[in-house]
Amino acid sequence: MTRTAPIDLRSDTVTRPDERMAAAMADAEVGDDVLDHDPTMRALEERAAQLLGTAAALWVPSGTMGNLIALSVHLRRGDRFLAPRGAHVLHHELGSAAWLAGGMPEPLEWDAGPGRPTADSVRAHASGDRRYDALHTTLLCLENTHNAAGGAVIPPHEHAQLAAAARDRGLHVHLDGARIWNAATALGLPPAALTVGVDTVQACLSKGLGAPVGSVVAGTSDFVAEARRVRKMLGGGVRQGGVLAAAGLVALDRIADLAADHRHAALLADGLTELGWDVTAPQTNIVLAAVPDVRLTLDRLREIGVLAVPMDGNVRFVTHRDVGERDVQEVLHRISRSGGADRPTGIPQAG
Amino acid sequence: MTRTAPIDLRSDTVTRPDERMAAAMADAEVGDDVLDHDPTMRALEERAAQLLGTAAALWVPSGTMGNLIALSVHLRRGDRFLAPRGAHVLHHELGSAAWLAGGMPEPLEWDAGPGRPTADSVRAHASGDRRYDALHTTLLCLENTHNAAGGAVIPPHEHAQLAAAARDRGLHVHLDGARIWNAATALGLPPAALTVGVDTVQACLSKGLGAPVGSVVAGTSDFVAEARRVRKMLGGGVRQGGVLAAAGLVALDRIADLAADHRHAALLADGLTELGWDVTAPQTNIVLAAVPDVRLTLDRLREIGVLAVPMDGNVRFVTHRDVGERDVQEVLHRISRSGGADRPTGIPQAG
Amino acid sequence: MTRTAPIDLRSDTVTRPDERMAAAMADAEVGDDVLDHDPTMRALEERAAQLLGTAAALWVPSGTMGNLIALSVHLRRGDRFLAPRGAHVLHHELGSAAWLAGGMPEPLEWDAGPGRPTADSVRAHASGDRRYDALHTTLLCLENTHNAAGGAVIPPHEHAQLAAAARDRGLHVHLDGARIWNAATALGLPPAALTVGVDTVQACLSKGLGAPVGSVVAGTSDFVAEARRVRKMLGGGVRQGGVLAAAGLVALDRIADLAADHRHAALLADGLTELGWDVTAPQTNIVLAAVPDVRLTLDRLREIGVLAVPMDGNVRFVTHRDVGERDVQEVLHRISRSGGADRPTGIPQAG
Amino acid sequence: MTRTAPIDLRSDTVTRPDERMAAAMADAEVGDDVLDHDPTMRALEERAAQLLGTAAALWVPSGTMGNLIALSVHLRRGDRFLAPRGAHVLHHELGSAAWLAGGMPEPLEWDAGPGRPTADSVRAHASGDRRYDALHTTLLCLENTHNAAGGAVIPPHEHAQLAAAARDRGLHVHLDGARIWNAATALGLPPAALTVGVDTVQACLSKGLGAPVGSVVAGTSDFVAEARRVRKMLGGGVRQGGVLAAAGLVALDRIADLAADHRHAALLADGLTELGWDVTAPQTNIVLAAVPDVRLTLDRLREIGVLAVPMDGNVRFVTHRDVGERDVQEVLHRISRSGGADRPTGIPQAG
Repeated sequence: MTRTAPIDLRSDTVTRPDERMAAAMADAEVGDDVLDHDPTMRALEERAAQLLGTAAALWVPSGTMGNLIALSVHLRRGDRFLAPRGAHVLHHELGSAAWLAGGMPEPLEWDAGPGRPTADSVRAHASGDRRYDALHTTLLCLENTHNAAGGAVIPPHEHAQLAAAARDRGLHVHLDGARIWNAATALGLPPAALTVGVDTVQACLSKGLGAPVGSVVAGTSDFVAEARRVRKMLGGGVRQGGVLAAAGLVALDRIADLAADHRHAALLADGLTELGWDVTAPQTNIVLAAVPDVRLTLDRLREIGVLAVPMDGNVRFVTHRDVGERDVQEVLHRISRSGGADRPTGIPQAG
Repeated sequence: MTRTAPIDLRSDTVTRPDERMAAAMADAEVGDDVLDHDPTMRALEERAAQLLGTAAALWVPSGTMGNLIALSVHLRRGDRFLAPRGAHVLHHELGSAAWLAGGMPEPLEWDAGPGRPTADSVRAHASGDRRYDALHTTLLCLENTHNAAGGAVIPPHEHAQLAAAARDRGLHVHLDGARIWNAATALGLPPAALTVGVDTVQACLSKGLGAPVGSVVAGTSDFVAEARRVRKMLGGGVRQGGVLAAAGLVALDRIADLAADHRHAALLADGLTELGWDVTAPQTNIVLAAVPDVRLTLDRLREIGVLAVPMDGNVRFVTHRDVGERDVQEVLHRISRSGGADRPTGIPQAG
Repeated sequence: MTRTAPIDLRSDTVTRPDERMAAAMADAEVGDDVLDHDPTMRALEERAAQLLGTAAALWVPSGTMGNLIALSVHLRRGDRFLAPRGAHVLHHELGSAAWLAGGMPEPLEWDAGPGRPTADSVRAHASGDRRYDALHTTLLCLENTHNAAGGAVIPPHEHAQLAAAARDRGLHVHLDGARIWNAATALGLPPAALTVGVDTVQACLSKGLGAPVGSVVAGTSDFVAEARRVRKMLGGGVRQGGVLAAAGLVALDRIADLAADHRHAALLADGLTELGWDVTAPQTNIVLAAVPDVRLTLDRLREIGVLAVPMDGNVRFVTHRDVGERDVQEVLHRISRSGGADRPTGIPQAG
Repeated sequence: MTRTAPIDLRSDTVTRPDERMAAAMADAEVGDDVLDHDPTMRALEERAAQLLGTAAALWVPSGTMGNLIALSVHLRRGDRFLAPRGAHVLHHELGSAAWLAGGMPEPLEWDAGPGRPTADSVRAHASGDRRYDALHTTLLCLENTHNAAGGAVIPPHEHAQLAAAARDRGLHVHLDGARIWNAATALGLPPAALTVGVDTVQACLSKGLGAPVGSVVAGTSDFVAEARRVRKMLGGGVRQGGVLAAAGLVALDRIADLAADHRHAALLADGLTELGWDVTAPQTNIVLAAVPDVRLTLDRLREIGVLAVPMDGNVRFVTHRDVGERDVQEVLHRISRSGGADRPTGIPQAG
């Protein structure tokens, strides 16, 4: 790798299909998934439901659409929903949870740790006030792993308590599990262990698992029937989707590979810390670094061939299957060299 | 007044038209305000605009509709808007700011005092990120006085700084001035001093000023033209509205009377404090009392003929023109008697 | 009446409260209808429900809001609803039936007469296709009398057949009865005879009956509970609404008076016909005249002191309680004089 | 081909990627099209814009989303839009044009021929009434070819007159060109000849051209920038979309092949006519047959291995690149045999 070839740590969404995945796409048996079911789509949806511990699942073009569909099915106009501060549905989906799914959001503080509200907080915000002129709180939306909290994991007992608190107050529970595979891998548990007490879950095929396009949204058969209708409304129904589902099936065979991404994130965090950076200890594949000037740091990283993105006042690095251990070492090398005695690129450092 | 006649401190919305107001309604010159302008409506709208320091104003059936119209005109679907935590538009309008006006809300902390965010906080949340896939923050919604903060007043210099910070970042500014008359009275300023830097303002005729029905929403002539259209869409256009506008004109003559309500609130707060209650020092006509069990306290107050409402974990008392100094003394007397040595009604008290 | 005092036949919405109504408003017993029920509001709602043959009713500021609330409760986003071509909900409510209530409209032709679709047409358009990707037709919205059809009446047997056809296909039925009082009067039947088979009905107090502001929307108790919530969302809940409800109660005592309006409309139509105009034979209080140039005719009528409005390519005259027999004769006199041998005002005429 | 292998004429959406297309997908150069542009996506969008005669284009997962995005950008809530009776946006997109794009539809009659309104009709329905309480008509939505009219083509001079009439009245013009390639082929014109006077156009890659997934929506650069934002809101942004764009690029090389589909449709229509069926003379690749009982006919066709769908009271057959001349002959053979002297399958026939 030459000095100028950039190493892309902006997101695990940048992964590209490898040969095996490309072959699966080329060879996929397909049908018209709007008229009737595409057979490879059906296989993918069944496998995803099995992994997530739900009765059924539906392929969608993006995680954003998966969350939007789930919220649209759960919420009536004017209902309030709870989500941890910084949640993807609050900040990264262009407000569709509000204007399109009809919900008034209420952010929950991270009282139990990064990205993690407490069950008490859920109870306190789910007042159960059912007067005609009161906002009705009807949904808790969790996120595991929590992106803005640096890929933080909600452990299963906490997760179960949050879901139980919500259900006890009559709320439904949706899990934005865009990176549920990472959470399960970090915990050494099957993904279904993280959907206990949850009504619906969205999980991405196109992030760490490496599929080019697509997510699934899962729940009961009735939910999926209604979700299929909302998907059609939004224009998310596709024809020979089997070409993408074939990639998705390959992706679902690769959950165990995520452990390597987590090791690489730890390596990166350790190296940056040694270089004097102020970084979070990563639980999964995301490393957040606090810097004095995010824009400046990102620009200088780009100059030395390291790509990252801003995230709520931090610099965010994400490891993924197209970045190996040597790439991480090269990243550290480039930063180290640029931040030496004379610090030509002037990357700001702690201390 | 007998012991059993309840004294109603639930809200200043409970005021009833007095004889002068009723006579004005009966004698109002009216027209069809949908086909063309009702003359009394027109007079009211001109007078309200003058008081609020705007070019034009529009009568609406409620403050909720006034806020909803302003937000609908300001926001495009998916825009983010900022409002202080606990704001009426966030908690007491059934989510219409989100699903109907199309906005994704972001609550601001009360960093500058009760109900008062800082200009720095406005700047921090108005990032100016205009990328196509980022939430665009386009509106600051202030509330003066702030209901959930116990009728707290934003002073004019702070207000101007908040508005300036917002406008500097390209945001519009809407002021929920449901009780702007109370704020102006408390500050000894004309109401227009509180709309400096503001694009639109909503102000209620039916709270402390005593009109039976109605609010106004005010701004530029272009805004009011568009607001009239949205009002029609929502079904808020009325025919011979002059009967209500006549009451509104009487109400606007009574702004100075609000000073008495504020004195009565201070009297009530002092008396409750003497009785050992934990109350806020009222800035206007609202007294909040922290009690261990809101529901229980409200029930027992009702038993002794004192009506109040819950407000975010407190008991809220509101003074108004149908409650005089002797009524407040009677309230204190009833509470004192019930909470004596043997405390028959068991109203929880501090200490 | 001098030549220049205009006679206003634009709408029956222009009526003004008379002395009895003004007195009732001034003397009304009121309460806070948002916090709890205003007693005069409650009396009005009970009386309206009784007249309309429903379990409950809710006051709303306008017929537009009444229809909007009913459609919002009946429709899920993306449902299709049927309404006769030219219906008020299709053309005169700024599209809120679509974007706000969430319905995709399908106009029905007037196969059975002016403003009147056939039961066969209802059946043909209510396919019962329940596939996930098909538009679901869930509501029939009738209008009686039908405004754009010149105040045409749907007779009760036809009405019952339309409702039965709809219900047989699983549709709900809403009746826009803004002028149901006129239909009942023309038919010599109680209004409740026109709500057989209907789920919800909206009826105006502010048209022929002469109240300054307000309508009711009526149906089951469950419907009204939900309608109250939607009214609050839209900002249609008011405080001391009793002042308006008192006028509404007086209005509901005056249904029988509408027969005079109908006689006056017949008188006007006969007179215009004699003058060579091409007019519909009015069934109630609306006269439509086909003219070559609507705008020109309206301008010239205005010059001679006769006010009317355009309606789908016709000139519309509406008789009401503020226009007596002598006023109608004066209208005919003014038109006759202006359209004489030399036709100074040049009002276009048939023949 | 055995007797039991069904021949699928339900839609041209059923086509499957052939070897060349599969190879292009497997070999596609890809990037993250949400973070920055995927290079193959960019190539596809540039090529589509060039073919359609617009400045820019945007890939979308479906034609439904393309239309929805265009309508969302053009319409403000409560605007009225015109579309020919039976249009896809009116009947086959689950009402999203109404509730989501915010438009109140007005169907135009087919005064100029199947699927074709007249410019006079456009003018008559675009009143230009800009009063605050009038429905504003702001968009004409054309469809070429028109699906429900049996793939009928609007000729370019008529098309230009319709667009000119709309623009003259201040309306924008959107063209649902899901099958614009068929229209252009039938007319022997480049597709751009059919977008004269049009603001935006949607065109499908997944119908006759054979791509597995995707459409484009095209217009000015400003439109596409806004469309990209709405696509993100709806969840239609995808990551390594290049795998699908590669198929789209192959598809765009195959426009000329559509002539064969048109010949096959003519062959089918002639054969059915000879067998006594009542069919339309196809202009492109769609054949509509009027039968006494659509459901019954479809069931019996299925029994003999011929797949078709219902379309507004007709049976619809669509030819496409996976059906050759021999397949059409086999379809006619199967029908002929089943409808012989003893008519074992009892397919209803005219005459």
